[in-house]
Amino acid sequence: MTDDTEPQPEGEPTSSLSRRGLLGLAGAGLATVGLGGLGGYAVAGGRAAGSASTAAPAGRTYAFTGAHQAGIVTPAQDRLHFAAFDVTTTSRTALETLLRRWTYAADRMVRGLPAGDLGPSSGPYDAPPDDTGEADGLPPSGLTITFGFGPSLFVDADGRDRFGLADRRPALLKDLPHFPGDTLDPARTGGDLCIQACADDPQVAVHAVRNLSRLAFGTAAIRWSQLGYGRTSSTSTAQTTPRNLFGFKDGTANIMAEDTAELDTHVWVSPDDDPAASWLAGGSYLVARRIRMTIETWDRAPLREQETLVGRTKGSGAPLSGGEEHTDPDFTMTGRGGAPLIDPASHVAMAHPRNNGGVRMLRRGYNYTDGSDGLGRLDAGLFFIAFVRDPATQYVPMQTAMARGDLLSEYLRHTGSGLFAVPPGVPDGARLSPTDGAFVGEQLFA
Amino acid sequence: MTDDTEPQPEGEPTSSLSRRGLLGLAGAGLATVGLGGLGGYAVAGGRAAGSASTAAPAGRTYAFTGAHQAGIVTPAQDRLHFAAFDVTTTSRTALETLLRRWTYAADRMVRGLPAGDLGPSSGPYDAPPDDTGEADGLPPSGLTITFGFGPSLFVDADGRDRFGLADRRPALLKDLPHFPGDTLDPARTGGDLCIQACADDPQVAVHAVRNLSRLAFGTAAIRWSQLGYGRTSSTSTAQTTPRNLFGFKDGTANIMAEDTAELDTHVWVSPDDDPAASWLAGGSYLVARRIRMTIETWDRAPLREQETLVGRTKGSGAPLSGGEEHTDPDFTMTGRGGAPLIDPASHVAMAHPRNNGGVRMLRRGYNYTDGSDGLGRLDAGLFFIAFVRDPATQYVPMQTAMARGDLLSEYLRHTGSGLFAVPPGVPDGARLSPTDGAFVGEQLFA
Repeated sequence: MTDDTEPQPEGEPTSSLSRRGLLGLAGAGLATVGLGGLGGYAVAGGRAAGSASTAAPAGRTYAFTGAHQAGIVTPAQDRLHFAAFDVTTTSRTALETLLRRWTYAADRMVRGLPAGDLGPSSGPYDAPPDDTGEADGLPPSGLTITFGFGPSLFVDADGRDRFGLADRRPALLKDLPHFPGDTLDPARTGGDLCIQACADDPQVAVHAVRNLSRLAFGTAAIRWSQLGYGRTSSTSTAQTTPRNLFGFKDGTANIMAEDTAELDTHVWVSPDDDPAASWLAGGSYLVARRIRMTIETWDRAPLREQETLVGRTKGSGAPLSGGEEHTDPDFTMTGRGGAPLIDPASHVAMAHPRNNGGVRMLRRGYNYTDGSDGLGRLDAGLFFIAFVRDPATQYVPMQTAMARGDLLSEYLRHTGSGLFAVPPGVPDGARLSPTDGAFVGEQLFA
Repeated sequence: MTDDTEPQPEGEPTSSLSRRGLLGLAGAGLATVGLGGLGGYAVAGGRAAGSASTAAPAGRTYAFTGAHQAGIVTPAQDRLHFAAFDVTTTSRTALETLLRRWTYAADRMVRGLPAGDLGPSSGPYDAPPDDTGEADGLPPSGLTITFGFGPSLFVDADGRDRFGLADRRPALLKDLPHFPGDTLDPARTGGDLCIQACADDPQVAVHAVRNLSRLAFGTAAIRWSQLGYGRTSSTSTAQTTPRNLFGFKDGTANIMAEDTAELDTHVWVSPDDDPAASWLAGGSYLVARRIRMTIETWDRAPLREQETLVGRTKGSGAPLSGGEEHTDPDFTMTGRGGAPLIDPASHVAMAHPRNNGGVRMLRRGYNYTDGSDGLGRLDAGLFFIAFVRDPATQYVPMQTAMARGDLLSEYLRHTGSGLFAVPPGVPDGARLSPTDGAFVGEQLFA
């Protein structure tokens, strides 16, 4: 997006420069980050910035618009607020209006602007502010907002077409099967819509979801939400591999944003994938799994057992067949007594693409800690997020096998789940407006 | 603390340099921050650092030792993990051992070292690692760990002396009274011990509590825990005032770490305060309140109502009597019709020291968001923490009045509560050892 695409809703006073705009722009040190086809853009210029200052907000910014939605190949930010919504309206027009308002607000918030044009502390005194204010003065913090559509948006539990969209439902967009050992909480599972907000500041990510929820009042309501920290995957070769709550490096074999050929093969839906769902071309599927770890039990397991179950060393993350973190595991190498150095039922063996027909996924998960469970244990684990082109071949078979055979499963409980179709991005240069602008997923409604 | 106080347990191999030590020390840019009487110290030197590198870990470090515990006047870090524990042992010796092990591990972790000497990936293969590993390679991140003792540590619900400490219980250390409107969840209330871990990285704060909980296995178990983000108070004049989830600046009138006279008057317990509890001299009382905000209702309140209830403007935080954020509110100033510009029942009026007999407190709270409540609403609000010299005069009367009269109370629900006596710090230079070293609260057991 360039300056001339800055949204300019008709009739809006150009003097309504928000306090947050002013404050934010008084900061220093903008790092605009370009990302493959997305292309970074500078906030300087445009309405909010034009009359304020020549300086630009602190912190990274990622454009909301682009061929693909941001927040997928974007280098993983440090914090997550994920929310699933139930649509409460029966009006297709109201649903479209919601997506239009969400798009407009998301495009503003990723730039560090308030959700609405007036901001948290201006506008009519007798009306609620059009932004809730807790991010006032905070930099954009690399915020990305990614929207998805769940299976239940198309067809309800009784098979009824809710919004005249049933014949455009992608064949792959259906509830994930029950996996062995699943203990899913309905209050943490499913949803008609989802929002993944990622930022380097949790207050910015929470603010984004809260303001989108506010805009949805009367149309959609939060079904469940999840905060995450300490990302468990790198999505860029420039990021180091972080550690999960087992204390091991996680996501070493992830697809990287720089692997454009791999992204086309494994992440982005192609126009030919599903003729009925051509609207999803350039999009992806988001698999969400809330995976509680029984960390107190894990912490009493010997180091040898921990490394055997994972199949890697705890320190460097090297496979037990030798080398360093990024060395390809050798599942054929044997040690004393002829036993394989990497147990075939270890996590690294069960999850490796070579043992799963070559399938790969773009992982983008976060650690979570949600207090304790009343039994002296932390409710902590991994909020797994993966983006795939085909959940039926890239996620379901692997998870079925792992739920049955992965040695780590003893320490894992899947307590929440969701599958969402993530439409492509709103094109760069599209006109955005809360009343009649372009919006995310528009192709579905065309 | 200086290098020569680096703990050196007898008989420990000096070659057991942990991976985390090595990794952490390979970073760059140590900022050692001195704090009043605490005094900063450099990690360079000492066992872990000596053979590794001349560079020092990235990130702020605060000494664990000092006249007062760290984490009270320390400039508020961005993230919190607070945990309350039930002591499960009946052995006073086991309790003392726990505190000794906690002290030793805390002193290590605030320096970015593993909780134990061997670390997450070294040591005997047939034993559990003495650190869980998820902070491996992360900088100290300004971690502070602050310990407190609840009333139930001294006397149980039936009035029995649990550990021979009953006659040393401070008279002020008793359960807070039931306040009007309280809807406390027992699963979020009370506790024999508490740990406040603050850091600029949540993974570091979570790691600290988890490893202390691991050390407590068989002796104490987590009763409840709370994550927080987006601190709601500044505790240093160098910090800007952050915003709470009402979108307003919070903690403007806080006691600052630089106000040493105010700290002596309002925060630190004096040796003469309670002859039976002289062990608490140099310590303080920690009041914790989990205050849910009904943010969805708030977000539909007009800006005028929001500002009236708070008594300040939403943008700048200036009192409604005029000026800017730090202008003293004028509760006598009237506007049209002779009505006061600041409503006497507004939050700023109800909470102001002048309207509370001059009492002040050191606030150190955090915003929280714990998912949603199943009714389409976020479970979000304020985890209020305050340090006071006397909860009976500095907290109870004010909260009683505010629960009855504060206009904001309509949007608040107190869902958790705790009061803890926070002993003074372990003196600089004390010898620390998990088996026979100095420990936090030692004066209580002397």
